[in-house]
Amino acid sequence: MSAEPQSHGAFDRHPLDRLFRPRSVVLVGASENSAWSQLIHGNLVQMAYPGAIYLVNKRGAAAHGQDAVTSCTLLPAIPDLAYIFVPTEAVADALHDVAAAGIRHVMILSSGFGEAGAKGAALQHNMVDIAQANGIRFMGPNSLGFINYADAIAVSPFPVEKDYVPGTLGIVSQSGATTNVIAGFAQQQGIGLSYAIATGNEADVGTAEVVDFLVADPATSVIAIFAETIGDMAGFRAVAQQANAAGKPLIVLKVGRTELATQLAQAHTGSVTGDDRVFDAVCLQDNIIRVDTIEELVVTAGILCHTGPIEGSLGIISISGGACEIVADTADTVGLPLPAFAPETNAGLREMLPDFGSVYNPLDVTGAAVRDPSLFERILTLLAHDPAIGLTACIYDLPRGPDDFDNAQALACIGRGLAAGQKPGLLINQSLRPVSAHSRAVMARNGIAAVTGGLDHAVRGLAHAVRWSRNRDSGDKSEAVRRPVSSGARPQSELEALAYLSKQGVPVIPHRLVLAAGEAIDAWQAMGSPVVLKIASPAILHKSDFGGVCLNLNDAAAIEEAFDGIIAAARVAYPDAPIDGCLIAPMRSDGIEMFVGTARTAWGPAIVTGLGGIWIEALDDTSLRLLPITRQDARDMLDALKARRILGGYRGGQAVDLDALADAIVAIGDAALALGPDLVALEVNPLRVHGSRIEALDALPIWDDAA
Amino acid sequence: MSAEPQSHGAFDRHPLDRLFRPRSVVLVGASENSAWSQLIHGNLVQMAYPGAIYLVNKRGAAAHGQDAVTSCTLLPAIPDLAYIFVPTEAVADALHDVAAAGIRHVMILSSGFGEAGAKGAALQHNMVDIAQANGIRFMGPNSLGFINYADAIAVSPFPVEKDYVPGTLGIVSQSGATTNVIAGFAQQQGIGLSYAIATGNEADVGTAEVVDFLVADPATSVIAIFAETIGDMAGFRAVAQQANAAGKPLIVLKVGRTELATQLAQAHTGSVTGDDRVFDAVCLQDNIIRVDTIEELVVTAGILCHTGPIEGSLGIISISGGACEIVADTADTVGLPLPAFAPETNAGLREMLPDFGSVYNPLDVTGAAVRDPSLFERILTLLAHDPAIGLTACIYDLPRGPDDFDNAQALACIGRGLAAGQKPGLLINQSLRPVSAHSRAVMARNGIAAVTGGLDHAVRGLAHAVRWSRNRDSGDKSEAVRRPVSSGARPQSELEALAYLSKQGVPVIPHRLVLAAGEAIDAWQAMGSPVVLKIASPAILHKSDFGGVCLNLNDAAAIEEAFDGIIAAARVAYPDAPIDGCLIAPMRSDGIEMFVGTARTAWGPAIVTGLGGIWIEALDDTSLRLLPITRQDARDMLDALKARRILGGYRGGQAVDLDALADAIVAIGDAALALGPDLVALEVNPLRVHGSRIEALDALPIWDDAA
Repeated sequence: MSAEPQSHGAFDRHPLDRLFRPRSVVLVGASENSAWSQLIHGNLVQMAYPGAIYLVNKRGAAAHGQDAVTSCTLLPAIPDLAYIFVPTEAVADALHDVAAAGIRHVMILSSGFGEAGAKGAALQHNMVDIAQANGIRFMGPNSLGFINYADAIAVSPFPVEKDYVPGTLGIVSQSGATTNVIAGFAQQQGIGLSYAIATGNEADVGTAEVVDFLVADPATSVIAIFAETIGDMAGFRAVAQQANAAGKPLIVLKVGRTELATQLAQAHTGSVTGDDRVFDAVCLQDNIIRVDTIEELVVTAGILCHTGPIEGSLGIISISGGACEIVADTADTVGLPLPAFAPETNAGLREMLPDFGSVYNPLDVTGAAVRDPSLFERILTLLAHDPAIGLTACIYDLPRGPDDFDNAQALACIGRGLAAGQKPGLLINQSLRPVSAHSRAVMARNGIAAVTGGLDHAVRGLAHAVRWSRNRDSGDKSEAVRRPVSSGARPQSELEALAYLSKQGVPVIPHRLVLAAGEAIDAWQAMGSPVVLKIASPAILHKSDFGGVCLNLNDAAAIEEAFDGIIAAARVAYPDAPIDGCLIAPMRSDGIEMFVGTARTAWGPAIVTGLGGIWIEALDDTSLRLLPITRQDARDMLDALKARRILGGYRGGQAVDLDALADAIVAIGDAALALGPDLVALEVNPLRVHGSRIEALDALPIWDDAA
Repeated sequence: MSAEPQSHGAFDRHPLDRLFRPRSVVLVGASENSAWSQLIHGNLVQMAYPGAIYLVNKRGAAAHGQDAVTSCTLLPAIPDLAYIFVPTEAVADALHDVAAAGIRHVMILSSGFGEAGAKGAALQHNMVDIAQANGIRFMGPNSLGFINYADAIAVSPFPVEKDYVPGTLGIVSQSGATTNVIAGFAQQQGIGLSYAIATGNEADVGTAEVVDFLVADPATSVIAIFAETIGDMAGFRAVAQQANAAGKPLIVLKVGRTELATQLAQAHTGSVTGDDRVFDAVCLQDNIIRVDTIEELVVTAGILCHTGPIEGSLGIISISGGACEIVADTADTVGLPLPAFAPETNAGLREMLPDFGSVYNPLDVTGAAVRDPSLFERILTLLAHDPAIGLTACIYDLPRGPDDFDNAQALACIGRGLAAGQKPGLLINQSLRPVSAHSRAVMARNGIAAVTGGLDHAVRGLAHAVRWSRNRDSGDKSEAVRRPVSSGARPQSELEALAYLSKQGVPVIPHRLVLAAGEAIDAWQAMGSPVVLKIASPAILHKSDFGGVCLNLNDAAAIEEAFDGIIAAARVAYPDAPIDGCLIAPMRSDGIEMFVGTARTAWGPAIVTGLGGIWIEALDDTSLRLLPITRQDARDMLDALKARRILGGYRGGQAVDLDALADAIVAIGDAALALGPDLVALEVNPLRVHGSRIEALDALPIWDDAA
């Protein structure tokens, strides 16, 4: 770590640079009697902050062995950053004072705002007004500050470990306590940090902007995020795409999968967690790694800090057969591919291990490597030269302290083997154990660059790292998606919607509007097959409920009866509805019914698809993506359905033309986008699919009447 | 730990008592040059083994500062236990020598047997023969021995930690390396051990018998198992039921979920892992906790070592809102109920925390408890007196070393709060961190009885512990299941099978065998509804394929045509099959089709059910249990189906009478059992279900022709 913040050039300085790399700091609310004040001041001193530290105390009382003034306007210079931790009701005055002193970057620790009901929300709103009026950018309220490990600056009440490990992992979290837990766990695992930042209520500076800072920060290579909510959704997606382009993975632990967690988040920082399934789609589409636990967050980040993007698959060995079996089971569960080795690798292994019947990946090197540790080096070197292998790993427990068993010879061989072939190599502890200063010394002595573990977390982290690396190439594809221009159309009825969809390239069933029974009979004869008759009215959404649909009609008398019956029933059920007549179309019964619908969400318009019918709806088997989507996205959506097998032609059914179906789904999404932001939803239900014949049989647009 | 093995009375001594609590030991293969010998001898000495240690060396060379003899027959006494670690090819001779000396308990470390192909398997078979002929019980080969912490006896090459924590967790594993990892991780987490036992290839003593020893062992309260395979399946189920009755949870990490892990296990210890879904059913039915990772195994065990059976739900608090949200999400995922507090608890909480809008479980006590740590004690005490709460927990990080932040006041309040109300109380670390000697001293100082963590593992472990506690009551219900006596029947055809099922109490559709078209017409008239005609022949299993089934017949001409057509088609398709005629039954089209089938498995006969039709089959949505089952088992099977919602009357469909359906499933299972062990499978497909009308429409018995 450098002793002093490096100065960036004026032109490339990030808007938050002065906040996270301040040259001077004022503590507003400093007091000898305040635990906050003691902790914050103590951290600055402990990390040997080289800049000026000023204190503001409302009575001007000295604190921490240093004089204080009663107002920021009395300071001898304008500090880069003010940290405010006065009582809730005094925050507004403090902010005015800070503004009057010309300070432009602020953090607010005080709580009792957005997280504390309507009164607190009003106070927070006022805070934003004051800041905006004075050109102030601020983090908080309810922000427990940050630790900048890269420049050794802590502006935070959280204790900083004395022998902390600096590195390239940046941590961002709304929750201060959780920031501290994540940072502490990373340090325990020997993972070096660049920043740990607690954003609090995010009334101004939010997660997206902090991530933007870290993506631009040269000290940071991997970004770990704990989020209750994402405030600036468009900003977050944009910065995720920048991170991807920069090769810096974003790893997110986002709570709010459940109703209870959502309520707790509301009570905690006043945030609304949003629809969890839509956030899953964001992560898929923007190549963000989503994790479920703090351990998974940190272990995954630690692996990626070492490997960066991985080019190829994992080759993994162990002297424990049990460990190999656990790895195999877990890899399958989490989707980590463990391909067989290349034939020349297998041949080389058989030469080294002549007693082996079969060779697997993971490779159980058995007690042979206990008797002859050079096998570790020779086998890992062989794997590193396998063209399909992008990363080697060896499962072996690293000593934590001087009392731990330390097989120096084996570790030296493993160190040389993992360093072979210019590919990243990882040691994996069998269970999750700390990587102590002693462990790091053992690693340094043996040339072991990185360690992770235990088996479960390592395999999960490796699966994320490999998947992220593979998806990077296609990461910016959404840029290439043609964004549909607004069509200006506003279809209301099924008839208008089908016509609109057809014009937009969606395959639609042949159909006609008929105004009388005679016309219907003519149409039936022209169609040459059994037909369906449906009421045509822009005001009637639920056609089946009152008898507005008749299926499978195949003679003139039945058609006449059906037409008259539908019109009569509609007049009774909807006396005020304008009735256009009936819609007639061929009856379809072969193939499979799909559902395709679009919907507005907090993250923008999204599209959902799944098989139709009550079975699948009851099973909740649908795929969701944000619009626009590519054909590959649509194929991925179909592949993600549990019912995917049925589309492939299950039990003698005809296989669906998946490309044609994907094209239809893309076209429906594009058509919905072209209807503009007032469209609430566009449902195509069913989209009937039989081999390569894809047809929208019905369509329902729903508009925001307030718009 | 006691300095000397306690002697059990002769009558209650377990058959393995002398193996795991030997009063004297001989090391066969002892040598100054053998690493194994050094490690094994060193462990005995390090743990201050009070009994005699004898050495056998083929040349009689002294080792480890002690004389050796060339044969066990030359020893001055008969040791309780011999540990053999000579080369593979010398094991048989060593075993003969041990036998000649009168030794009756043996462990064999040597490898190269069942895990090493056909030649090794033959050697292992020979080893078993020698042992049986001489009344020897042995563990291994390929066994890395055991550490008996309760009596301080290590007969194992694995290093024993100098300051190990004794306790009540017993560990059993086939894999020696994995035993060591599990024991080491438990020790890291401060979880005390009674035994760590590595069974190896299990040629004689297997996991089931070792678990039986631990269930009987007064020092052991919880048993953790790592298994590649379960050899003695009936023994394992029996001991699982004893463990349940004794209130000692069994927690199992069993590999072999995937094909690759199965292959690796075969290569590792020569074991076949078996059908994983059947083992899931065993765990469900015998109240065994099945886990997926080493960490989950150990954390769950650690929780149960402290809590024992839990009577009620969990009440949990934290000063971190983020932690509460993570707990809420994880609890939902893993099925840990977090019920709301009782009204009087809520009232008490509102009094203590007047600023709170709402009160949730988990309870975010916010910074209020930082300012006033007495809140910890008062709130936890309040929860401990909530009648529905059986266990309290507080999320708070325990210091690992003197440098860690140690809020003595808060920890003291938490200690008193967790001890309140005579209910178990747990501290939960936010991330998975070691529980060091320092941590344990802090706990002792503050009266904190137990700690676990991190959040994810703790919630998973608590979910297991609560579920295990709840299921204990119903644990021995399988004893109460009426075990059907053999019926002596051997139905072959559909007709015989339907008749048999009906006799056994399974509801079967009304049906008749008809020998001519005229009879069929008479039957149709008597039935008064559309009918189905099906070929009746014991030799024709697949009736639909060749036109042997006609549906929905409702006039005399159609029935005549169908009858003649079916018979003619059958004569063409199966010229040699005896044809009984046709089976006629009313046509059913309402309701839902279920599939119910039984099958022989390695664990005994099992029953499977799920919805019929291609959708559900394609989705692989079935429930499986071992037979016999109770009505509650059958209800649980139905509840576990993803398609469960459809049975409840989804989208206006009629709700199924679940009790009647469950009774039918139980009756089918009992009927299959009563057909005896030669029955391979009995399929009832479909079992048609409409409200409370349940009817088997078809039945197919399959017999083992070799039997």
